[in-house]
Amino acid sequence: MTYKLYYFNIRGLAEPIRYLLKYGKIDFEDVRVEREDWPKLKETMPMKQMPVLEIDGKRVYQSVSIARFLGKKVGLAGSNDLENLEIDSAVDTFVDLRLKVTAVMTTPEDKKAEAMKTLKEETVPFFLSKLNALAEENNGHLACKKLTWADLYFAALTGIVKFGAIEGEDIWEKYPALRKVVDNVEAIDAIKTWINERPVTDF
Amino acid sequence: MTYKLYYFNIRGLAEPIRYLLKYGKIDFEDVRVEREDWPKLKETMPMKQMPVLEIDGKRVYQSVSIARFLGKKVGLAGSNDLENLEIDSAVDTFVDLRLKVTAVMTTPEDKKAEAMKTLKEETVPFFLSKLNALAEENNGHLACKKLTWADLYFAALTGIVKFGAIEGEDIWEKYPALRKVVDNVEAIDAIKTWINERPVTDF
Repeated sequence: MTYKLYYFNIRGLAEPIRYLLKYGKIDFEDVRVEREDWPKLKETMPMKQMPVLEIDGKRVYQSVSIARFLGKKVGLAGSNDLENLEIDSAVDTFVDLRLKVTAVMTTPEDKKAEAMKTLKEETVPFFLSKLNALAEENNGHLACKKLTWADLYFAALTGIVKFGAIEGEDIWEKYPALRKVVDNVEAIDAIKTWINERPVTDF
Repeated sequence: MTYKLYYFNIRGLAEPIRYLLKYGKIDFEDVRVEREDWPKLKETMPMKQMPVLEIDGKRVYQSVSIARFLGKKVGLAGSNDLENLEIDSAVDTFVDLRLKVTAVMTTPEDKKAEAMKTLKEETVPFFLSKLNALAEENNGHLACKKLTWADLYFAALTGIVKFGAIEGEDIWEKYPALRKVVDNVEAIDAIKTWINERPVTDF
């Protein structure tokens, strides 16, 4: 199979996909679309958005769906249906937080300060304490007491977590089990190598 | 296995789960929580929200994750990983629309008219034409050219689609392949029976 990943030149929603491909030592073309080329390319994308993964010429979309597919492929899915449910519900819980964070990023200026306050004082502590509890129960993993694609999904998107931190706060200090999830992922050779060699971008 | 489903006395996000359980002829207790009982019950729920499905006493959450699990159980998953990716990405696309619709429902009053206009004139037509194209390619199904849990998920949440319709418009007339998806699901005996016997609620 040949893989071609289309996304902007940022980590963003493509980074979990890149982590999974790197983890599985799967060769892929990491296409990074420049902003000025996007309007034209957009018309060729199934849902007019990215990330899109081209698998043997077929373009598939939806970042979580792609991550689940690759997770299975590289041996990071659950070993039965209940384990997969555990993985999926942990990821969906993190996605709920992700969506709340991005909603604040795009809130109109006149409501932004208020939205940011609710996010940092209520939303983020609620979700991170729940996810931290999961990570405690699962010994430094988000599900199934072992490394799964949920861990890679989370670790690739720590920017979401950091955005929700209160100024000057070390968010990992408050949620040490979640830091362990990230540390476990970043200790994997293929991921460590990727972090060192990937393009340096803001997000 | 014993199943106990907790949700409010509405169709809402529990209805795809009810459809799947009914489709699979799986007995379950359909617990409908009254609003006044919710504050106390909430504290016992893993993520302080519903729907929650209790499987042999273990409470699982996240409606799409549960639907995927049940879809597999009742024989409505894909027959290989690429088919499951097709199902997942169709569902996630519909969930994107669902989230945009619910965001408008909860928009502050001073911005609501504008949000509603964008929703009905841009967002809904964009998503429904994409989903309708999928349903055309797949002969009245959302994925894999056959009945999958994606169809049941969609058909159980038509309220989302109808909310996005322009006043006086028959939305199914504009998207006939999507009507076919719903018709196909509602023609299934177990679903037909359920629709006739289920509690009548507004949402």
